[in-house]
Amino acid sequence: MSKTFTTSALAEAIDGRLIGDGSLVIDRVAHPADVRGARDLALAMDVTLVPLLEGTKAHAAVVSDDAKFEHGKIAACIVVSRPRLAMAKLTNLFAEEARHPEGIHPTALIEKGAVIGANVSIGAYAYVSAGAKIGPGSTLYPQTYIGPDAVIGAGALIYPGVRIGSHVEIGARCIIHFNTSIGADGFSFVTPQIGSAESAKATGSVTEFTTNSELVRIASLGSVIIGDDVEIGANSTIDRGTVASTRIGNGTKVDNQVQIGHNVVVGDNCLICGRVGIAGSAVVGDRVVLGGAAALADHVKIGDDAVVMGMSGVAGNVLPRTVVGGYPASTREKLVENHFYFGRIKHYVKKIEDFAKRLDTLEQNSKSD
Amino acid sequence: MSKTFTTSALAEAIDGRLIGDGSLVIDRVAHPADVRGARDLALAMDVTLVPLLEGTKAHAAVVSDDAKFEHGKIAACIVVSRPRLAMAKLTNLFAEEARHPEGIHPTALIEKGAVIGANVSIGAYAYVSAGAKIGPGSTLYPQTYIGPDAVIGAGALIYPGVRIGSHVEIGARCIIHFNTSIGADGFSFVTPQIGSAESAKATGSVTEFTTNSELVRIASLGSVIIGDDVEIGANSTIDRGTVASTRIGNGTKVDNQVQIGHNVVVGDNCLICGRVGIAGSAVVGDRVVLGGAAALADHVKIGDDAVVMGMSGVAGNVLPRTVVGGYPASTREKLVENHFYFGRIKHYVKKIEDFAKRLDTLEQNSKSD
Amino acid sequence: MSKTFTTSALAEAIDGRLIGDGSLVIDRVAHPADVRGARDLALAMDVTLVPLLEGTKAHAAVVSDDAKFEHGKIAACIVVSRPRLAMAKLTNLFAEEARHPEGIHPTALIEKGAVIGANVSIGAYAYVSAGAKIGPGSTLYPQTYIGPDAVIGAGALIYPGVRIGSHVEIGARCIIHFNTSIGADGFSFVTPQIGSAESAKATGSVTEFTTNSELVRIASLGSVIIGDDVEIGANSTIDRGTVASTRIGNGTKVDNQVQIGHNVVVGDNCLICGRVGIAGSAVVGDRVVLGGAAALADHVKIGDDAVVMGMSGVAGNVLPRTVVGGYPASTREKLVENHFYFGRIKHYVKKIEDFAKRLDTLEQNSKSD
Repeated sequence: MSKTFTTSALAEAIDGRLIGDGSLVIDRVAHPADVRGARDLALAMDVTLVPLLEGTKAHAAVVSDDAKFEHGKIAACIVVSRPRLAMAKLTNLFAEEARHPEGIHPTALIEKGAVIGANVSIGAYAYVSAGAKIGPGSTLYPQTYIGPDAVIGAGALIYPGVRIGSHVEIGARCIIHFNTSIGADGFSFVTPQIGSAESAKATGSVTEFTTNSELVRIASLGSVIIGDDVEIGANSTIDRGTVASTRIGNGTKVDNQVQIGHNVVVGDNCLICGRVGIAGSAVVGDRVVLGGAAALADHVKIGDDAVVMGMSGVAGNVLPRTVVGGYPASTREKLVENHFYFGRIKHYVKKIEDFAKRLDTLEQNSKSD
Repeated sequence: MSKTFTTSALAEAIDGRLIGDGSLVIDRVAHPADVRGARDLALAMDVTLVPLLEGTKAHAAVVSDDAKFEHGKIAACIVVSRPRLAMAKLTNLFAEEARHPEGIHPTALIEKGAVIGANVSIGAYAYVSAGAKIGPGSTLYPQTYIGPDAVIGAGALIYPGVRIGSHVEIGARCIIHFNTSIGADGFSFVTPQIGSAESAKATGSVTEFTTNSELVRIASLGSVIIGDDVEIGANSTIDRGTVASTRIGNGTKVDNQVQIGHNVVVGDNCLICGRVGIAGSAVVGDRVVLGGAAALADHVKIGDDAVVMGMSGVAGNVLPRTVVGGYPASTREKLVENHFYFGRIKHYVKKIEDFAKRLDTLEQNSKSD
Repeated sequence: MSKTFTTSALAEAIDGRLIGDGSLVIDRVAHPADVRGARDLALAMDVTLVPLLEGTKAHAAVVSDDAKFEHGKIAACIVVSRPRLAMAKLTNLFAEEARHPEGIHPTALIEKGAVIGANVSIGAYAYVSAGAKIGPGSTLYPQTYIGPDAVIGAGALIYPGVRIGSHVEIGARCIIHFNTSIGADGFSFVTPQIGSAESAKATGSVTEFTTNSELVRIASLGSVIIGDDVEIGANSTIDRGTVASTRIGNGTKVDNQVQIGHNVVVGDNCLICGRVGIAGSAVVGDRVVLGGAAALADHVKIGDDAVVMGMSGVAGNVLPRTVVGGYPASTREKLVENHFYFGRIKHYVKKIEDFAKRLDTLEQNSKSD
């Protein structure tokens, strides 16, 4: 029961220019190397894929407007100027209707005092605690856990194994993937006397007077508040705040295995890639991009529209619209420059050694003059 | 039904010096920017927050003894000398009574031969395998899994989605957060002939004679043994040992998304921050601090009271009370020094280039003499 | 009810040379420091453990053929030439029969249209969606989730908390540990106009003309296809592909907390260590080893038999049989060389400063001549 579209309808839907036959029927999009038949639309928006269109079984293809391509070979060719945007539109058109749980499964446990909105679906073995509120049209997949007094907005999609702690608030239309944990306690301990990490930060060393022989737990009174239209990947973690709440702004997208510590504030429309770690109390502006496996130290501030390159370690504040990378992170220009020279360090050392000899010679000559 | 305390009771509880009215009733602690009313205690222990006390609705505040502050503006001021310790005490006083499952839920499955102590609470859809022992006063949240013959000490708190493998032993009063996995098999494989990683370690290269065409699995006969008063964050993993057991000492605190490999031994009272990875057979002493995203190579030994800075990659042993950082990790002094010079590398290269010219000139002059 | 073997049977099983008594009965393998009695086989294949055999209660031991050891002190000594292979064989011999769920638990929910093979075991509170196929002899532990139309091969072992998304295909004899998530949607978004990360990649900076004010979601039409004999650790994540599927080859072993992004293709018999991250569309060859916490940037290609050292950040392609490390990753030789010089950078700077003085002196002398 796949969906079908004509080539002209697809061209219109993705703002493409159609060359050729607009009446072809398409029921699948495919990588050019994976075309199975005449009803496939070959996606060759990447120019390196265009050669794969030679002799393809597909009668229709999408290419980017910088591809050099004899369109005559394909009966219908859709030319687009922004390939990834066309990809977004096409994948959404062809996405299979997700098979969500329907209705409330008889094994779903909803404690007294929980409020379930209209048209909510709750899967098998899900657990909704007392005081929780589930917004209309939301779906809780099987085996999810919603803690006491937690609030899930309208139209949310909560996948199996997701755990939402008490009082956590999730906005409308959020998507949270498998086994993600939101609202565990913050990692916050204090030593009665000055501890070793504290000493190392302040003085650079650990003295005989510092000890971590007692670690006193700081409780997490705050919660986690997540805006609307946020998507969070699988196996990520967002901890609750100490006194105030940890916050994620509207429209922000978080990948898999991201760790966001207590008291962190993330703005709107950020992109936070896989395995990023954000330590406690860091503040991330709006529209910030954090590349894969980047780490932010506690309390740092990242300005709006900044881009932190993958694997960076950010120990200080980052200005808006700045691109930073490396460890410790510096501006991209500085990073590129440093790596350029670092990669040639042996060359410079050889020069230094050569200079030593030349200087020796010159000095001896000078003396003997 | 929040708790209330007088300002004098609070001052006493946190070892603070009270200036002003000891009879005020407090029912909430708040960040100075989030004060809602007269019964809030404004937490301004960080000196940068003191200006926010101007015109606050709060009648009471906590400040540190190094704050310059006219206490008269606030009816009750509690002055503390160690702010984070005061924070620990205050958050614990005001922490809401956590709403744990009560009793054993009818859907909790307890296999024959499991031993459940007095006053144990087990939530919905939890599963306790045969031979497991749950200590008195412990709480298993909904959807937890306790493997065959696993032992959970008294007063433990096991959050939803936690998986405890067979024979794993967890001490008293441990707290384990959402979706953490303890006791999966170690990652341990061997190639019948010398493999590529082995060759790379021994000789620096992979030759035509090395192949990983067969990977033979080493079974994990050991278990995981965790001491008392250990707290482990969300989505962390601790693998079982090969022959002996992986061990975590008493009082150690582990953050979210920490990976601890097979045969690792961690001492008492360590602080292991988020996203740390500890490879197989590493040995970590007592009171060690591992900063966020740090990684320890297999078999390294970290001495007591050492501090490993965030994002470090530790490939060799670390002496007690040493602060190390960077990749490959060196002492903090060496790291700071190296980064200092590295950041100026362009400057030195320019000097080298300048020297080359000056040497050329001198040498020509010398010849022409 | 432990298993027992004679020393001669064990010697034969592990291809070892037996010195001494072949009739001793062994029912346990033990680290030399953890021997409990005469029926323990002391594992002293690591030469550093041989001294622990002095005065041991064990009557039998395994040592490597490069150990200098008077075998007479031990009644039965088994000498092996490849200790870790012997370890693999021994641990598999002595591994306790894993206590899997037996049969299909009455609380296991199997939706209509799911196909369950012969001799499948499904634990309590597991959920198998409509259209899913579970191969003969497979075991689904309690609290697992199998999505619509997902396929699990014969003899698979799926541990508690594992989530398998819709249409995902898992080969025969795969082992997947606690809380791992396979088949969440890829992390793939596009901005209608040029976005900040795109601008940073292309031009090195973020201009006023770039904005991430709208993030359009790209749907994931592809799936995840995993070969036979693959083992995946705990809390790992593998995302589905965009149009084609994400693929993991036969025999590949993946450790805990590994993140594998959408469209990634991993070959056969790879070893992917803990906390590795592989960004979208990267291609990893056969028999590749990725060390702990290494990261591959999107679209990079790693050649067959390459070894990527732990904590490396790989931003470019890697040739077959190459050993690379560092960030940005270079060949091991280059990395070692760079670190060598980097570690001596202060020394070279001092030389440069000394040269400056010597040059000044020479130049002044030269002028005064």
